[in-house]
Amino acid sequence: MFKKILIANRGEIALRIIRTCKEMGIKTVAVYSTADRDSLHVRFADEAVCIGPPPSKDSYLNIPNIISAAEVTNADAIHPGYGFLSENAKFSAICAEYGIKFIGATAEQINSMGDKASAKETMKIAGVPTIPGSEGLVADLKSGIVTANEIGYPVILKATAGGGGRGMRVVWNDEEFEPAYDSARQESGAAFGNDGLYLEKYIEDPRHIEIQVIGDQYGKVCHLSERDCSIQRRHQKLVEEAPSPFMTPELRERMGKAAIAGAQAVKYEGAGTVEFLVDKHRNFYFMEMNTRIQVEHPVTEEVINFDLIKEQIKVAAGIPISGKSYEPTMHAIECRINAEDPFNNFRPSPGKITHFHSPGGHGVRIDTHVYAGYTIPPNYDSMIAKVICVAQTREEALNTMERALSEFVIEGIKTTIPFHLKLLKDPNFRAGNFTTKFMESFDFAE
Amino acid sequence: MFKKILIANRGEIALRIIRTCKEMGIKTVAVYSTADRDSLHVRFADEAVCIGPPPSKDSYLNIPNIISAAEVTNADAIHPGYGFLSENAKFSAICAEYGIKFIGATAEQINSMGDKASAKETMKIAGVPTIPGSEGLVADLKSGIVTANEIGYPVILKATAGGGGRGMRVVWNDEEFEPAYDSARQESGAAFGNDGLYLEKYIEDPRHIEIQVIGDQYGKVCHLSERDCSIQRRHQKLVEEAPSPFMTPELRERMGKAAIAGAQAVKYEGAGTVEFLVDKHRNFYFMEMNTRIQVEHPVTEEVINFDLIKEQIKVAAGIPISGKSYEPTMHAIECRINAEDPFNNFRPSPGKITHFHSPGGHGVRIDTHVYAGYTIPPNYDSMIAKVICVAQTREEALNTMERALSEFVIEGIKTTIPFHLKLLKDPNFRAGNFTTKFMESFDFAE
Repeated sequence: MFKKILIANRGEIALRIIRTCKEMGIKTVAVYSTADRDSLHVRFADEAVCIGPPPSKDSYLNIPNIISAAEVTNADAIHPGYGFLSENAKFSAICAEYGIKFIGATAEQINSMGDKASAKETMKIAGVPTIPGSEGLVADLKSGIVTANEIGYPVILKATAGGGGRGMRVVWNDEEFEPAYDSARQESGAAFGNDGLYLEKYIEDPRHIEIQVIGDQYGKVCHLSERDCSIQRRHQKLVEEAPSPFMTPELRERMGKAAIAGAQAVKYEGAGTVEFLVDKHRNFYFMEMNTRIQVEHPVTEEVINFDLIKEQIKVAAGIPISGKSYEPTMHAIECRINAEDPFNNFRPSPGKITHFHSPGGHGVRIDTHVYAGYTIPPNYDSMIAKVICVAQTREEALNTMERALSEFVIEGIKTTIPFHLKLLKDPNFRAGNFTTKFMESFDFAE
Repeated sequence: MFKKILIANRGEIALRIIRTCKEMGIKTVAVYSTADRDSLHVRFADEAVCIGPPPSKDSYLNIPNIISAAEVTNADAIHPGYGFLSENAKFSAICAEYGIKFIGATAEQINSMGDKASAKETMKIAGVPTIPGSEGLVADLKSGIVTANEIGYPVILKATAGGGGRGMRVVWNDEEFEPAYDSARQESGAAFGNDGLYLEKYIEDPRHIEIQVIGDQYGKVCHLSERDCSIQRRHQKLVEEAPSPFMTPELRERMGKAAIAGAQAVKYEGAGTVEFLVDKHRNFYFMEMNTRIQVEHPVTEEVINFDLIKEQIKVAAGIPISGKSYEPTMHAIECRINAEDPFNNFRPSPGKITHFHSPGGHGVRIDTHVYAGYTIPPNYDSMIAKVICVAQTREEALNTMERALSEFVIEGIKTTIPFHLKLLKDPNFRAGNFTTKFMESFDFAE
């Protein structure tokens, strides 16, 4: 087992990793930017090394500084957390070169999943459902209509050079195809100087459901059931839960098998997440695979009583997994608490926390790196805490969350707690009746 | 279901009950003494009524004031917590008279278990093992020796009027009997003016293991497995855990059956605990039955994912239980954090908490009514928080506890955290190798 792990991250996830290391008797090295001197992750690690100032390219993304910190402190492994260098193939490779175990995927695995087109191809070969689409670009109007009929309406036309919704059109039938095709070509040509379009099946009102997998160094992969992350605002997850209210045992089995097959196709090692879109008929389609621990991993931990960070460390140290997959026996939900004003377009609200008191009691878990007197720096993402509630049923877990959030005292800054309390009262959310479009029509007024 | 529950208690247990009421959508009324104005239980309840000054006889034990508070606020039920009026048959009866549901045992049930001699008799008839002993007083030396041989050595002679260890002798064989008998008679005669002695089997190095039971209004009783509370100092529990490291499935089945039989013998309704002494041969003997929720109930909640307060409320409202008993699937441990100086004979340390920050993360539950800026009054027992840690194995739960306690910031007063951290390093405690005598030889030095 490792003797000392350097955590190449900050905030709650750095603290999260330190906690498990302590429980495993492994020494820890925190790294921090000059903006993060007062963070709890620095205080609770056995050693701490300053790796530069903000912005992140000069500190948390500065590979030479992080490798130096590991060398100086004699760390034999690095845990990258999420974000920053966690899916950086070069960093994974450099760690390997220096004989420091990277607690995550190999450079090869990261690369194979990092390129979206090749990831999709790999998954297709492994038998994982992917979103049907044109092979390459649509040659002309006629062949486009043929392809659309092969795939089945609705379809979506997308600019190959595009982004941000430009050159994008949803098409529902043959009649709509020609005008949509023409206007999408014009728009993408004007916007990107490239009017090439490709075609994909349009998934209506999908859910974002992801499968947690873990693989060991000996080719064994198991899945730890799903998380529903459909509650998003501008592609940012706000609330996650497990199990998904939309899940059935039959769908879980199919999705679990697909996720395992996909992970095995790249000989996946470590904890990873296979993200799917699920349509209303419970067809599911591969979106991407994240080759790291995710922000929302605690909901899985709570429903299956499993420490995922511990499992990551054990797998990285060469310990085999049992290979058995897990069924959720409880229901867990996570609310991300951000230092933002939810009633003012989620404007960031950094600054000094004057009062702070965590909720507690049965079924409540708090992951946070902040405390009374701490000043949230403006340099990083605004998540300051995660509240995770677990109970026997979804309804009870939601009730516990309402109770916990109503107790949470964070003064001196604005937080998203009032948004979460409002969401928890929404009848559709309560009924588990939501898709990734849900927040688009949510009334964010106070 | 009840619309409004008055909580006739203070501190962490009052807050604990309020939390579950909130989660169930039941309104709450806190009562408080003038010394407890600033406690969180007052802040988090929907309504709060001051019921008088300390000492407790003028407030938390003042039945007329509490009944008035319930009447004024229209509460339809009273939860008594633990201690105070929780096992007061008169209070239970008065609640019934006033048409307020007492969330606990009936006066009859409390009385039947409150008198130790009749409780023992009831249990014996129900087939629950009790400590063998003389029927009444030992008539003379000769009959004493006969009884001792019937019971089997070692036996203990106890003064019928006694207490505090006086007039008490452990006897290991026939030769020792006469001198022990004579000196115990002399001592008790001198100390109490009554030299009557009775005889009981002496349980060597016992463990304190208790079975949580719950009964509904329809005669169904189930058990929720055991808690080991052997870590005590002067009969005060310090640490509790579930399952007991000494337990076997076979012993659990026998003890569970006995506890259910005992509870059924008194038609027990609500949550209760049957306490046993368990000797090294895994013989167990009834000690007493507590007809209330206990301080250490969270360890049971964590190992079986069960809200005991919710269950108490449901049963009191007439909802039947399933009747199935529960097996622990996890390991949980609770450390009671007291405002006491553990290195100075556990001297109470009331006063103002200047800094406070709870531990968090996976497997950690905190139940506390205190916060930064709160002043602990000197009037009540000194428990200020309970830390409960849960993991898949005992070793992991102990490691999580060490990690959590090392993070816990409570400044301005002394606490028992350093004692717990020392205990957690003790090799015998770690090995699960302890009895109720364990703390007698523990080195309390810093």
